[in-house]
Amino acid sequence: MKVRVLVRPKRGILDPQGEAVKRALPALGFSGVGAVHIGRLIELEVESADEVEGMCRRLLANPTTEEYEWEVVS
Amino acid sequence: MKVRVLVRPKRGILDPQGEAVKRALPALGFSGVGAVHIGRLIELEVESADEVEGMCRRLLANPTTEEYEWEVVS
Repeated sequence: MKVRVLVRPKRGILDPQGEAVKRALPALGFSGVGAVHIGRLIELEVESADEVEGMCRRLLANPTTEEYEWEVVS
Repeated sequence: MKVRVLVRPKRGILDPQGEAVKRALPALGFSGVGAVHIGRLIELEVESADEVEGMCRRLLANPTTEEYEWEVVS
């Protein structure tokens, strides 16, 4: 099965990539953009979803600075 | 509204982060993991979704090496 993990900077943690995009958009002519946050998209083929939570905690996300969510997508 | 953009390496494009995670998981005791792909999660607050496609094409994704999809999430 395919699992999708979304990893984001925790609220209050500096997100320099998001800031850079937020500043670049108006320079390209895009207006009306508020907050921008950039994280990671991780897609895995796994035999079972049982260990995905452990993979997130131990490797895929940094629990100090990041939050994550995951779902089975197919 | 909040828009979520998922950006992935195109099929056939080298994904060194995904390879690194795929190799690290068995070393941590996680088995049964096949392909791993790592991309970017971008979440934006926008006034209208009209310009999101243009933002993806012009800034958020590299059309040579990456594919993207987006959706309004709230």
